[in-house]
Amino acid sequence: MKTYTVELAPNGAELTCYLQHESWEMPTADIRPAMLVIPGGGYVMCSDREAEPIALAYLAEGFNAFVLRYSVNGKPWERAYEDGAAALRYIRENAASLHIDPNKVAAIGFSAGGHLAACLGTMGPDRPDALVLGYPVILPEMGPPMGLQIPDACAGVDWTTPPSFLFASSDDGCVPVENCLSFAQALAKNAVYFELRVYLQAGHGFSTGKAAHANGNPANAVPDTQDWIPDSVRFLRHVFGDFPLDGMPQPGILPPPDRFGPDTPIRRLASCPACVSAMEAVSPGLAGALRANPMESGMSLRMFAQAGRISDELLKALTDKLEKL
Amino acid sequence: MKTYTVELAPNGAELTCYLQHESWEMPTADIRPAMLVIPGGGYVMCSDREAEPIALAYLAEGFNAFVLRYSVNGKPWERAYEDGAAALRYIRENAASLHIDPNKVAAIGFSAGGHLAACLGTMGPDRPDALVLGYPVILPEMGPPMGLQIPDACAGVDWTTPPSFLFASSDDGCVPVENCLSFAQALAKNAVYFELRVYLQAGHGFSTGKAAHANGNPANAVPDTQDWIPDSVRFLRHVFGDFPLDGMPQPGILPPPDRFGPDTPIRRLASCPACVSAMEAVSPGLAGALRANPMESGMSLRMFAQAGRISDELLKALTDKLEKL
Amino acid sequence: MKTYTVELAPNGAELTCYLQHESWEMPTADIRPAMLVIPGGGYVMCSDREAEPIALAYLAEGFNAFVLRYSVNGKPWERAYEDGAAALRYIRENAASLHIDPNKVAAIGFSAGGHLAACLGTMGPDRPDALVLGYPVILPEMGPPMGLQIPDACAGVDWTTPPSFLFASSDDGCVPVENCLSFAQALAKNAVYFELRVYLQAGHGFSTGKAAHANGNPANAVPDTQDWIPDSVRFLRHVFGDFPLDGMPQPGILPPPDRFGPDTPIRRLASCPACVSAMEAVSPGLAGALRANPMESGMSLRMFAQAGRISDELLKALTDKLEKL
Amino acid sequence: MKTYTVELAPNGAELTCYLQHESWEMPTADIRPAMLVIPGGGYVMCSDREAEPIALAYLAEGFNAFVLRYSVNGKPWERAYEDGAAALRYIRENAASLHIDPNKVAAIGFSAGGHLAACLGTMGPDRPDALVLGYPVILPEMGPPMGLQIPDACAGVDWTTPPSFLFASSDDGCVPVENCLSFAQALAKNAVYFELRVYLQAGHGFSTGKAAHANGNPANAVPDTQDWIPDSVRFLRHVFGDFPLDGMPQPGILPPPDRFGPDTPIRRLASCPACVSAMEAVSPGLAGALRANPMESGMSLRMFAQAGRISDELLKALTDKLEKL
Repeated sequence: MKTYTVELAPNGAELTCYLQHESWEMPTADIRPAMLVIPGGGYVMCSDREAEPIALAYLAEGFNAFVLRYSVNGKPWERAYEDGAAALRYIRENAASLHIDPNKVAAIGFSAGGHLAACLGTMGPDRPDALVLGYPVILPEMGPPMGLQIPDACAGVDWTTPPSFLFASSDDGCVPVENCLSFAQALAKNAVYFELRVYLQAGHGFSTGKAAHANGNPANAVPDTQDWIPDSVRFLRHVFGDFPLDGMPQPGILPPPDRFGPDTPIRRLASCPACVSAMEAVSPGLAGALRANPMESGMSLRMFAQAGRISDELLKALTDKLEKL
Repeated sequence: MKTYTVELAPNGAELTCYLQHESWEMPTADIRPAMLVIPGGGYVMCSDREAEPIALAYLAEGFNAFVLRYSVNGKPWERAYEDGAAALRYIRENAASLHIDPNKVAAIGFSAGGHLAACLGTMGPDRPDALVLGYPVILPEMGPPMGLQIPDACAGVDWTTPPSFLFASSDDGCVPVENCLSFAQALAKNAVYFELRVYLQAGHGFSTGKAAHANGNPANAVPDTQDWIPDSVRFLRHVFGDFPLDGMPQPGILPPPDRFGPDTPIRRLASCPACVSAMEAVSPGLAGALRANPMESGMSLRMFAQAGRISDELLKALTDKLEKL
Repeated sequence: MKTYTVELAPNGAELTCYLQHESWEMPTADIRPAMLVIPGGGYVMCSDREAEPIALAYLAEGFNAFVLRYSVNGKPWERAYEDGAAALRYIRENAASLHIDPNKVAAIGFSAGGHLAACLGTMGPDRPDALVLGYPVILPEMGPPMGLQIPDACAGVDWTTPPSFLFASSDDGCVPVENCLSFAQALAKNAVYFELRVYLQAGHGFSTGKAAHANGNPANAVPDTQDWIPDSVRFLRHVFGDFPLDGMPQPGILPPPDRFGPDTPIRRLASCPACVSAMEAVSPGLAGALRANPMESGMSLRMFAQAGRISDELLKALTDKLEKL
Repeated sequence: MKTYTVELAPNGAELTCYLQHESWEMPTADIRPAMLVIPGGGYVMCSDREAEPIALAYLAEGFNAFVLRYSVNGKPWERAYEDGAAALRYIRENAASLHIDPNKVAAIGFSAGGHLAACLGTMGPDRPDALVLGYPVILPEMGPPMGLQIPDACAGVDWTTPPSFLFASSDDGCVPVENCLSFAQALAKNAVYFELRVYLQAGHGFSTGKAAHANGNPANAVPDTQDWIPDSVRFLRHVFGDFPLDGMPQPGILPPPDRFGPDTPIRRLASCPACVSAMEAVSPGLAGALRANPMESGMSLRMFAQAGRISDELLKALTDKLEKL
């Protein structure tokens, strides 16, 4: 393991890199997925309780990990966002020397750091390939109590938002769970794959839920919540796949997010403006008509054709258009 | 085990009772929690895939179980609701002979049955003590595609709604996950304790997620989703407590839902109109002022007093009022 | 669910059958694996704590279940054994009407019932296809304290013994864990696949480890031990396979126990006298020589040939012999 | 995280230290349990697959970790043993600067490293406080195939051996599971608390069971086996306790290994020669008589007195003697 800290331009944010030992016994692990860890702290501090312990959890699962300490404590929100984007750029630009796959860079953020991670996933050109959000701040109304103007992290959610794993507690008295649920609603509306765990009674800031990281506070050592780590690892394997076996990559289970065709569910086509335009060009009004019945939102064009709802010719014409996107 | 089916007035709905053997070796299990199982089927049928297999899962955890086959297939929705209420009444009125605790009657519903269970939890006098909702129909817009007018199951959510465990899949193409999320939002707004699991890619109607109950359909045999059974059992133990040990009841972990005092979080006080009225009577505008900052929604009156935000006299006056409710 | 009790000849032992509802919605579950449940009780009684609760655990996983109450309390041990064999015969002879697969009949026994299950797995013609043994009595020295002469359940272990899942607690003060370990040693010596769980501190007779079945005794409600149920279900799926999906059977993962060939590990060949004889006939002394190095016990004849340890001709001759067994 | 490597006298073995960041936010974690990681490799090499990945698993649970690369490849076995003892001494002597609790130093070893760990636990003055042994070499017959003379790791097991967690696979074709079972038998005989997991079909050298550490070999990526990490963490918490909460230490669940009294089970008294001597001094032959019935091995002197098997005077005399040990 090599650990070192770099300063990121332009704000001097610190990125601590945790790079696993490369062994001749494990060449299949020479390229790893990466996890960018964004601690919380109300945009006032970057909490150690959500920093190294989180990096360690993913290191143990084969990731290289990177902890970001971003601009806080009175700095405008845009600085923090710049720091997050700079961290993603640093990781991807140095992918080879960091031994990571630049197409498998996840970001995990907690509380205010969850807001930053969600914004990285929905704004600008430098986006994570998957998100994990722990009891995240999402709604803009949370800014003023922190003395900040912050964007609504839901605003930018669209069909390009990366698959996301969210968790929170139903009784969070600091960042109400409505934040987490609002982001989930935005993902659902845009047919983005996601997972969500809301626990019964664990309040805010429980980190890993383990006594080791609770600093003596029983409210932060709730066994139920410890599930989010293995559950999020399973999620990330579904999204990224796993390390190769028998010389074969182990791919994830999701359809490629930017490919469409006759087997794409109508709910997913309808969430992508380019797809809607393509369908409009072939048959005006069709996309809306097929999307009208929520109970059919899982049906694909092929299924509509099989059910006699569209003609085979129309299916073919639509398919041609969609596959060219 | 005794199993038998009774017909419930007034519509002749069938309730199949699964009652465990009462053994002199286990007198502490003479009184059990009860689970009312409400299968789905689009209000057209009552699916066997969400009937006995679900009863068995909770029987194995010590519950007595009751499967309801309610009015469907063209009958007005109110009939189904009457059947559910009749089932709850039957179970509670016969608590002694059914060997169940009338204060520990949970209901689990799937899809359309989830809508029925949610309505039982939020309407009328006969309510379950806890809800488990699997990929539930919630929104009224789901009625017409089923050829029915159905109420919005969110409409009746208030602070009296029982603690709830919800689960669904993010890609549900039949009952969009927005249904599940909307109910969660309503619970959150009213400070009702809940749990929620959204899985990545399991579609609709996965029941237990086990091949045994998938009827050969791989889309319904998704290992991830098998977690909801042990997770909901853990939830029910948190709500109901567990069987006694060493002669002592093992209570649940939630505060009593109908008791309020100086340690109740302001978010919970604010969700109960009687509490708000009580606070208004003592100090007009106070409830709203204390609730204004979402980041303080977990603070109690005592904590506000300790922070110097209200006087000790005011705390005492409010406490007196609230504890009398 | 149908439940009824039959009397088994010749001793009038009672077998309670738990048969799941056969639904037109689940034709793939018309044939189920079967679990024969053999409660413990020191050959003096048949404990209800290890009877119906165990049946329910496997019913929930898709099995049909059968609880045996066998001859105890002063009856000679052979009677109990006859009862067990009669139960297996009854289940297999009525496989069609019981909706079970006669090649997937497991037996689970606890304590003295574990001794009976182990003996059924190692003696006589009527054997279970898989064993689950909970804190079993194994050693003959356990008989006299129960006022009985009982056989050593290890004595009959050979390569034909069915795959077995064993569990116990390291501090068992009633049936010392040495019993369980001895059976595991016998299985290991004969290259029988098995699983074993020894828990830290759970004593004897913990059944499911759940408060529901502990009858108020905290020593019998140890959360750690609750793992054996899902772990044994996973084991049984590895052995029996799972319900069909997409019209295809889901086979188990173990090699067929009675087929041998060039890829069978030498440790497995050496445990089967017919294989040893076949090898002796081709090349006297070879089996012993190849088995001499314990670190090579996982090597197959093909691997020995690839390593130049036997000639290709010899490999072919041995393969011919073994594949004819 | 600080990572660095020290050379240990007298043989120059390398100990790589992984020390977590000490944060003012987590003073309760200033003193951590320690895990000494001893990789396998047939006493020929120290495998990286059982080195850093294992350290990371326990770091994520709050341990500081130490990977030992010991004398191999033709060096006499005693050198390796010296290296292990030197590592334990280094860790304990530098406990303050390493931020670990010198009374909570566990050792985990794999294969040949499991042999070394087991020997450290049973020989000499420098012993771990808990053992985790993965598919360990135990029996002396395993030495010659590795070109070494090695001691029988069972030989030194007695009542002072630390609590142990063992795991292996039933079909291990390189280090037969009989090794693991033999150590378990020795622990059982001496009433040492232990846990044991034998998996069905995972062969040898599966490390964490994760694809990340399998180096492309599917035989080493067996999901079942991944359970040993969380299971061993739970075991270590049972033995060491957990980080303090609310200012209170969270103790383990085992009785102190070196304290005896009227509530100690007779099986435990009988495993300790000093206890047997003490009992002999009071009542010759008593220890043997009380230990004769294996089904009573969990009974304590107090229970024997309550059952009228020994007098109250004798109980008192024995108690006085035992409590002075």
